[in-house]
Amino acid sequence: MSHLTGKRVAVLATNGFEDSELTEPISAVTEHGAEVTVVAPEVGTITGKNGHEQEATLSTADANASDFDALVLPGGVVNGDQIRLDSKAVDFTRDFFSQHKPVGAICHGGWILADADVLQGRKVTSYASLRTDLQNAGATWVDEEVVVDEGLVTSRTPDDLPAFNSKLVEEIGEGKHEGQQA
Amino acid sequence: MSHLTGKRVAVLATNGFEDSELTEPISAVTEHGAEVTVVAPEVGTITGKNGHEQEATLSTADANASDFDALVLPGGVVNGDQIRLDSKAVDFTRDFFSQHKPVGAICHGGWILADADVLQGRKVTSYASLRTDLQNAGATWVDEEVVVDEGLVTSRTPDDLPAFNSKLVEEIGEGKHEGQQA
Repeated sequence: MSHLTGKRVAVLATNGFEDSELTEPISAVTEHGAEVTVVAPEVGTITGKNGHEQEATLSTADANASDFDALVLPGGVVNGDQIRLDSKAVDFTRDFFSQHKPVGAICHGGWILADADVLQGRKVTSYASLRTDLQNAGATWVDEEVVVDEGLVTSRTPDDLPAFNSKLVEEIGEGKHEGQQA
Repeated sequence: MSHLTGKRVAVLATNGFEDSELTEPISAVTEHGAEVTVVAPEVGTITGKNGHEQEATLSTADANASDFDALVLPGGVVNGDQIRLDSKAVDFTRDFFSQHKPVGAICHGGWILADADVLQGRKVTSYASLRTDLQNAGATWVDEEVVVDEGLVTSRTPDDLPAFNSKLVEEIGEGKHEGQQA
C-alpha cells in the first residue's frame, strides 16, 4: 500500500491537451495508489495534440471539488485556451483553492488559474508565453523546472515532468495546505 | 487612386495563424491602395492553421515601426501564443502605440498587446478566452464584433472580418491618433 491510497485526483482537460502532460501525471499518482477521474466539459473521449485518446467520465457541470483531494491541469495550448472558456471548469478549479487542496498545473494548463482568480501573491512557473498573463493575475513568475508554493505545483514544459510528478505526489501526500486559498 | 495609397501596413505573424485573419485584412488594405509587408520572427514561409503559405519578407529583428503607418495582428491560437515569445515582436508592436499609429488585432492576435503593456484604459474585444488576460492588462473588454478606440481596432473571430476590415481601413485612412500611446 502506497502513501496516496484513498486519495482521489481529478484531471481537468479538453481536446488538444499535451499528451504526456496528461498521461504521465496520471501514471505517477496511480502508481502511488491514488484513484484518478478525468473531468472534461462533456463526458466522452478527448484527444491529445499527438493523438492520445482519453475517456473523460465526469463533466465539469457534474464535478464537485469536495469529491476530490487534488486537481491536475495538463497543458497543450489548445486545451489550455479552450478549458478556460467553460465557466464550470473555472468554478471547479477555484473550489480546490477554497478547500485548500493541492493543485498541479503544467505548461499552458495554468491559464485557467487567472480566470479562477487564485494567483494573487502566489509563486508559479508555466510555459513562457503565459508569464505576462500570470503576473498580471497577481503571481510572481519564475523560470524553474518546478515551483511548489503551499500545495500549488507548477512546471513549464513536458521536459519538466519528472520534477513535476515528484512534487505533485509529495504535495498530494501532504494533503491540505492552509496557504492554498481562493 | 484609393485613399490608402502610399500607406505602408505591417502584418505581424508566425506559424499557426488563422488563415483568413491574415489574408482578408491584407486584401482589404491592398484593395484600398496600401502596401503590405508580412513580418515574422524569421524571413521565409509561414503556414496558417489551415495550410495557407505566406512569405514573410522582413524579420522582427530588422523591422522598425517608423517604416510603417499601421500594424495588423492576425489570430490563430498557436500564432498568438508563439509571437508574444519574440521580444523583438513585442517591441515592434509597442512602437506603433508610441508613434500613435493604428493597430488592428483580431481573435488571439491581441495577446501580444498585454506583453507590450499598451492596454491600460483601452477598450477592446478579442477571442473570448483572452478576456481575463486583457482585463488584467488594464483593458475594458466588451463582447462586440468590432471595437474602435482611438486607432486601436479589435475583433473576436473570423466571422467579424467584414466589420474588422472596414474599421481597419477607416482608421488607417485617418492616420495617427493621439489617444493611441504606450
